[in-house]
Amino acid sequence: MTPRALLERLFRAALGAADPARALPPHLPPRPEGRVRVVGAGKAAAAMAAAVESVWDGPLEGLVVTRYGHRVPTRAIEVVEAAHPVPDAAGLQAARRILAMAEALGEGDLLLALMSGGGSALLTLPVPGVSLEDKQAVNAALLRCGAPIGEMNCLRKHLSAIKGGRLAAAAHPARVLTLAISDVPDDDPGTIASGPTVPDPTSFADARAIVAKYGLELPDSVRRRLEAGEDETPKPGDPRLAAAEFRLVATPQMSLEAAAAAARQADVTPVVLGDSLEGEAREVATVMAGIAKQVRRHGQPVPAPCVLLSGGETTVTLRGRGRGGRNTEFLLALAVALQGLEGVSAVACDTDGVDGSEDNAGAFVLPDTLARAEAAGLDAKAHLADNDAYGFFQGLGDLLVTGPTLTNVNDFRALLVL
Amino acid sequence: MTPRALLERLFRAALGAADPARALPPHLPPRPEGRVRVVGAGKAAAAMAAAVESVWDGPLEGLVVTRYGHRVPTRAIEVVEAAHPVPDAAGLQAARRILAMAEALGEGDLLLALMSGGGSALLTLPVPGVSLEDKQAVNAALLRCGAPIGEMNCLRKHLSAIKGGRLAAAAHPARVLTLAISDVPDDDPGTIASGPTVPDPTSFADARAIVAKYGLELPDSVRRRLEAGEDETPKPGDPRLAAAEFRLVATPQMSLEAAAAAARQADVTPVVLGDSLEGEAREVATVMAGIAKQVRRHGQPVPAPCVLLSGGETTVTLRGRGRGGRNTEFLLALAVALQGLEGVSAVACDTDGVDGSEDNAGAFVLPDTLARAEAAGLDAKAHLADNDAYGFFQGLGDLLVTGPTLTNVNDFRALLVL
Repeated sequence: MTPRALLERLFRAALGAADPARALPPHLPPRPEGRVRVVGAGKAAAAMAAAVESVWDGPLEGLVVTRYGHRVPTRAIEVVEAAHPVPDAAGLQAARRILAMAEALGEGDLLLALMSGGGSALLTLPVPGVSLEDKQAVNAALLRCGAPIGEMNCLRKHLSAIKGGRLAAAAHPARVLTLAISDVPDDDPGTIASGPTVPDPTSFADARAIVAKYGLELPDSVRRRLEAGEDETPKPGDPRLAAAEFRLVATPQMSLEAAAAAARQADVTPVVLGDSLEGEAREVATVMAGIAKQVRRHGQPVPAPCVLLSGGETTVTLRGRGRGGRNTEFLLALAVALQGLEGVSAVACDTDGVDGSEDNAGAFVLPDTLARAEAAGLDAKAHLADNDAYGFFQGLGDLLVTGPTLTNVNDFRALLVL
Repeated sequence: MTPRALLERLFRAALGAADPARALPPHLPPRPEGRVRVVGAGKAAAAMAAAVESVWDGPLEGLVVTRYGHRVPTRAIEVVEAAHPVPDAAGLQAARRILAMAEALGEGDLLLALMSGGGSALLTLPVPGVSLEDKQAVNAALLRCGAPIGEMNCLRKHLSAIKGGRLAAAAHPARVLTLAISDVPDDDPGTIASGPTVPDPTSFADARAIVAKYGLELPDSVRRRLEAGEDETPKPGDPRLAAAEFRLVATPQMSLEAAAAAARQADVTPVVLGDSLEGEAREVATVMAGIAKQVRRHGQPVPAPCVLLSGGETTVTLRGRGRGGRNTEFLLALAVALQGLEGVSAVACDTDGVDGSEDNAGAFVLPDTLARAEAAGLDAKAHLADNDAYGFFQGLGDLLVTGPTLTNVNDFRALLVL
């Protein structure tokens, strides 16, 4: 097997572990006494709904909302497509119907909630009195001041009629089982889709403190809502959520473990460095190149053949005008740092199949990448300076294209060192 | 033993392995028939000379040049102090005398050359007709256009009367033994002090190609020298260098191995990630924090207790006006990324004892670093934004101060995960 073929096999193994059709069915509960309603939100929502239908024994009904282009055929569960990352009316309408569906359930019924990345934007329902525009203004202000995700979610949950455990509370006294695919660091249930079915430890007081900390200018409706402080989110221990259970069916770590197992089968030692590595893409590449060199020169941290596996989301600070997502940017910087180092190849992809806003999941780097680029008149450093990694790998024919995978466990990176 | 004490022990083990008094004597040759002249250049030159004297049986004579403040008492070998990184007249004069000393040797004699980091600036001797100012203008121009170290050295060697193997050629037919302490990636002999005793594979044609590539404006003297192309550096296979031997007595890797052995003695698993990791200090810290989290959450790449060891030189892009070298900057970013993660501590130091231009070698990060900082009114993120890591760790009493160590195997970083 060529390095490129092996790397693609590892990526496919990672994708396979995150495929709802394989990952979801083992977690389904027995058929309950009462009614079953399936709801959900996220990039994987339709694929998860289809996975439920494929094995469920009994009547099913429900509604899930997914991103435009992420629909798959379903039999009984309705699929609505809506906008991501900026919510639209379709998402709002779907969220309202999902909440109503939960409220209609009673004792002995089951709400099956299918949550995945992107669910926060897709499942948007501001509280009465706060408009979608007002809520988005708060989001934009938080982004501008660099607030961490935890603080953004605290405010979001206190302006939402469905997030922060409210969906599960609405379903009470029905049982709630959430099956989730994680694309977030630490697989925090409260972060995936902003946790519509899990208790929220944060309070209105926390939300007001965050507003004060950043000196946020708020729309009147939002200011009144936060000052009134009524209608608090369900807290841990809330009896309405006592029958709510949360299970991760796919995570970045599970996908890395699947790739590690595939590597072992090929007699290549897997080294899992992290399921949530962060940092500027080109700098992460520099560090990875250094570790690959250490394997080659000193057989550390393990001897070759080995593969350095990692997940998590890098960032790209745009300086140029080119095309490309964070995975191809990582790979281009890696190729430059490796300078054709013998025996080192790599793949990096977004597991949702879309690197940035392009049509590729990622790309490959091979020992001869720079040499072939030079022969083709592609200047690696110039492309990197212009953030044009897509153009670079397209020119080499080394893009990896999968189309939308209908799942998402964040990025997947593998450096093979022979 | 506390985490801090263990981390300091690992750093001391790394320093010990690079201490000329311990590392150099095992590599000394038997006393030759003829005369012995000891020459040398670098931050460790005086300490290396003293190490030779401490065990040498027989008459000794020679001259080494080191950085101001790096003198140690010697008996027979003269020590000259000179400027670094910008050469001065003292260095020039010392280089001229060292070259003359080599030329005076003959059959049966031995030139013992002691090379260490900083030697390139300290051992400066432009060829006749090229002034020090002209040579520095070329250096500055190369730095401005971001030329890699290999290209800079090619030009330096072709404008120098002593670099690029010329010192060894001058000593011919005497035997030449170089004992070197490496602070460069790959421990390339031609890079340490610009390789005065090792063959130079690069040519005048290469030098002219580099000038053309970057469109460098050259002083007339330099242009004439490169166009004439006479007096080429000794190439691999040059008979004048047939009796020249090069030995590494201390390297970043040897120091990491020593720290790894000390970790094993404390029942902590060492993981050596790389002896020459590069990248922006704060981004390298983000990646390291991610790996430490993986150890805590998933026992990968190895279970705790373990220590992640690395060497090599990070960079700092200055944006603020604070104080601090790349090691404290790395540590401050690490503390911010870890957010007080339980069980994770770290040390990062320049092994020469001087982090940047401060009086500390480095500092410590402990799980309570951020909490103590907050209690002391120190804002970690604000200090990081101002590149003021020195002020931050000074305020906490967590600087690590050794004074100049008189050796240099680049940076040393250790993350202890319990």
